[in-house]
Amino acid sequence: MTHGSIFVGELIGTAILILFGAGVCAAVTLNHSKAKDAGWVVVAFGWGFGVLAGAYTAAPKSGGHLNPAVTLGLAIADITKWGDVPYYLLGQMAGAILGAVLTWLLYFAQFQANADEETALPTLGIFSTAPEIRNPVANLITETIATAGLVLPLLFFGKNLGTGIGPVSGTQTAYGSGIGPLLVALLVVGIGLSLGGPTGYAINPARDLGPRITHALLPIPNKGTSDWGYAWIPVAGPLIGGALSALVYKAAF
Amino acid sequence: MTHGSIFVGELIGTAILILFGAGVCAAVTLNHSKAKDAGWVVVAFGWGFGVLAGAYTAAPKSGGHLNPAVTLGLAIADITKWGDVPYYLLGQMAGAILGAVLTWLLYFAQFQANADEETALPTLGIFSTAPEIRNPVANLITETIATAGLVLPLLFFGKNLGTGIGPVSGTQTAYGSGIGPLLVALLVVGIGLSLGGPTGYAINPARDLGPRITHALLPIPNKGTSDWGYAWIPVAGPLIGGALSALVYKAAF
Amino acid sequence: MTHGSIFVGELIGTAILILFGAGVCAAVTLNHSKAKDAGWVVVAFGWGFGVLAGAYTAAPKSGGHLNPAVTLGLAIADITKWGDVPYYLLGQMAGAILGAVLTWLLYFAQFQANADEETALPTLGIFSTAPEIRNPVANLITETIATAGLVLPLLFFGKNLGTGIGPVSGTQTAYGSGIGPLLVALLVVGIGLSLGGPTGYAINPARDLGPRITHALLPIPNKGTSDWGYAWIPVAGPLIGGALSALVYKAAF
Amino acid sequence: MTHGSIFVGELIGTAILILFGAGVCAAVTLNHSKAKDAGWVVVAFGWGFGVLAGAYTAAPKSGGHLNPAVTLGLAIADITKWGDVPYYLLGQMAGAILGAVLTWLLYFAQFQANADEETALPTLGIFSTAPEIRNPVANLITETIATAGLVLPLLFFGKNLGTGIGPVSGTQTAYGSGIGPLLVALLVVGIGLSLGGPTGYAINPARDLGPRITHALLPIPNKGTSDWGYAWIPVAGPLIGGALSALVYKAAF
Repeated sequence: MTHGSIFVGELIGTAILILFGAGVCAAVTLNHSKAKDAGWVVVAFGWGFGVLAGAYTAAPKSGGHLNPAVTLGLAIADITKWGDVPYYLLGQMAGAILGAVLTWLLYFAQFQANADEETALPTLGIFSTAPEIRNPVANLITETIATAGLVLPLLFFGKNLGTGIGPVSGTQTAYGSGIGPLLVALLVVGIGLSLGGPTGYAINPARDLGPRITHALLPIPNKGTSDWGYAWIPVAGPLIGGALSALVYKAAF
Repeated sequence: MTHGSIFVGELIGTAILILFGAGVCAAVTLNHSKAKDAGWVVVAFGWGFGVLAGAYTAAPKSGGHLNPAVTLGLAIADITKWGDVPYYLLGQMAGAILGAVLTWLLYFAQFQANADEETALPTLGIFSTAPEIRNPVANLITETIATAGLVLPLLFFGKNLGTGIGPVSGTQTAYGSGIGPLLVALLVVGIGLSLGGPTGYAINPARDLGPRITHALLPIPNKGTSDWGYAWIPVAGPLIGGALSALVYKAAF
Repeated sequence: MTHGSIFVGELIGTAILILFGAGVCAAVTLNHSKAKDAGWVVVAFGWGFGVLAGAYTAAPKSGGHLNPAVTLGLAIADITKWGDVPYYLLGQMAGAILGAVLTWLLYFAQFQANADEETALPTLGIFSTAPEIRNPVANLITETIATAGLVLPLLFFGKNLGTGIGPVSGTQTAYGSGIGPLLVALLVVGIGLSLGGPTGYAINPARDLGPRITHALLPIPNKGTSDWGYAWIPVAGPLIGGALSALVYKAAF
Repeated sequence: MTHGSIFVGELIGTAILILFGAGVCAAVTLNHSKAKDAGWVVVAFGWGFGVLAGAYTAAPKSGGHLNPAVTLGLAIADITKWGDVPYYLLGQMAGAILGAVLTWLLYFAQFQANADEETALPTLGIFSTAPEIRNPVANLITETIATAGLVLPLLFFGKNLGTGIGPVSGTQTAYGSGIGPLLVALLVVGIGLSLGGPTGYAINPARDLGPRITHALLPIPNKGTSDWGYAWIPVAGPLIGGALSALVYKAAF
């Protein structure tokens, strides 16, 4: 894979991931949405199938990381080359911002209507995560463990699925070709259902930071705070969780 | 594939898609249905598994497009021949109308009971989409982006899954044999959950226009308006989204 | 496959199907169940994953029909031998009765508690289907179309998945080895969500008649009626739907 | 597989299973969780996708049993060597305890907040199962049949999926490589939906006993009873169910 191919794949794939993920948050949050208040199961499956859409799309160009914590884990595990890492990160951040803009366009009329209402709902929760109980140490631990719940299985999936299930013409992912991305998508549904309660499961620095930047920049009326005080936790926690997962993986094989 | 095979495959496959899709809308809408008010997650999975049923059924005859926006995208991407396109479209429209008639027959007693009630519910929402906020530009953008969320991944899936997962005796789809249609089905579940909030995600001109024609023609008492003023948006938006997706795909490979 | 193998496979597979299917109806119906009132999505996935469990279990012994409408459709389509049909039907009926008994044992304390309550809930709905609007012609049409929504795709799946996805050592199903039964399981989830509203989707004569016989025979106190007047519809409708599907299949290939 | 590899695989895999499983119970139970009261469907999918995560992770090291009832069934069926059984059990128990500790850390702020509330909720239900109606004989039968609903299909899956779906480089599971663990994961979702009503479906001695020990040992304030009087049933029932399944399997092949 060339650096250009990596950047393009991660850009498109992460944009799709965030379009679906921020999209489902908009869908259950905003008034005048058919999915208003549709519940946590909708949020978890929406994000998970966003992974499915984004990862299979990115796979033939970049292998479909879509997440700096995954890229870091794969680099420490000697699967992704360190020289490729910057192109992954750039593509992921650019894609996350693009995806958040697309979500805003798709729900444009709903965002406008919200701003016009007497008590406009805060909109940050559509873009980025926030903890239910604000406690930096506890929140950091939550994001670290929840991300290990993603990256550790993902690394082992690659060992398990190996060279893939039957002939595959495109680029294989580092976590198994064929059904690899499907398994990771269902894994992310599970993380949402099981581990998302305390902080809303960022488990991905680009997923949280990119849309937070977008939220700060977009001309959404009455949008509320971008909560920069919390922004470091969904970056640091996932990176720690991804790195720890790679160390366990290396010790196991 | 002969033109006759394409027409028959799309006819049967699209009829099954609409039977399941309009069926789930009837299931959650009409009184005297066991799934009355069962929620958005039921709608999204019902449509998605309708894609699974229709696409695997159509695949050995026509490759299983079931959607003019998919056919247009595949033609622009030089995967489907332009000479085959009319037979795809005819099969899709005929199938959508047939599927809507079958849904009406399956829920016949519920439709009759609804008409007899003092305040009959409007029935168009079972057949076709309507926006929560009526704003042609915003609605068109929503349908364009949501359809790109379908067609762009679908095109990349074909690149990714390539010649398929293991030996497959039947016709392969353009978006991957083997698990290709399953992935597209789960993708459509995700689109419903995440991107369906503003307009109800037509993302398919035949899915909206065919049942709208059926609604206008069927002798359903107290059926309410067929809302022809909105009908062009769920045709134009998906076609634009499908075409844009093909241009991105061609630029990427 | 020997006749004994067919009988044993269908017996075990159908018993598992009914254990899960009647089980989920008990789970959402009875008091003192953790899933009480958990909603239609739970019912549809419970039945669908019962198909997954039963079909993969039965497949190496009998090919995993589990449903007289499927067996009839496969026989008319010249896939299953007519001489094998009686052994399929016997195994399916015996398995359905056994599965219903196991469900009663598993929920024994709940059935007893229900009988002791001042207003015992009727229990037939746990075992067999009943229409929301009692109208024999409409109910028969509903069951016929809903069963065609199962058997027609299933026949085409076999054409599509053909000799299977990768090497498989056991017996293959007539509807595709490898992921065939998974696809049928998700198809049955979709039928439940979309087509189950009017009559509760028997779509399988053994699934309805076997548990109805069990309900009539079991010593459940305060169990209520077994509603024999309706019993012919969930037998006749599915058989008609299965036969019509086979005729469409034969015309298409 | 060496004994060390078995122990490590089961330790990691079972820890992940319990992290997701106890996690989803915490998610729907505790105040200040975004998934509070999200319903039974969330619980069932959370546990099922925990199986997916844990089984694919453990598979290349140990084959991914994660459950003493599965190990016992595989040993009786002559698939797993009796000499390996102790290492499976030790890994499973250690992993279950580790997973429960990780869950407590992930939801630490929520556990603390709960203890501070005027009426602290009992916390055992997050870790271990309890029956809705306390009746040892009925509860034992429920756990026995529900576990047979897991182990019997799992044994047949191995027969059906055989040497796997396409080339797989890692260790294969005894219940089929490739999609085997995915099928078992969906099976466990189905068991939750359908068979979990009376007792909360332990169906796994390590899943219940390990977290119960953890609950007894952890310094959770106001944690309530660990209910040791019930603890033998979710151990004995699953072991009986696993053994019976193996006997049926051996009789069938």
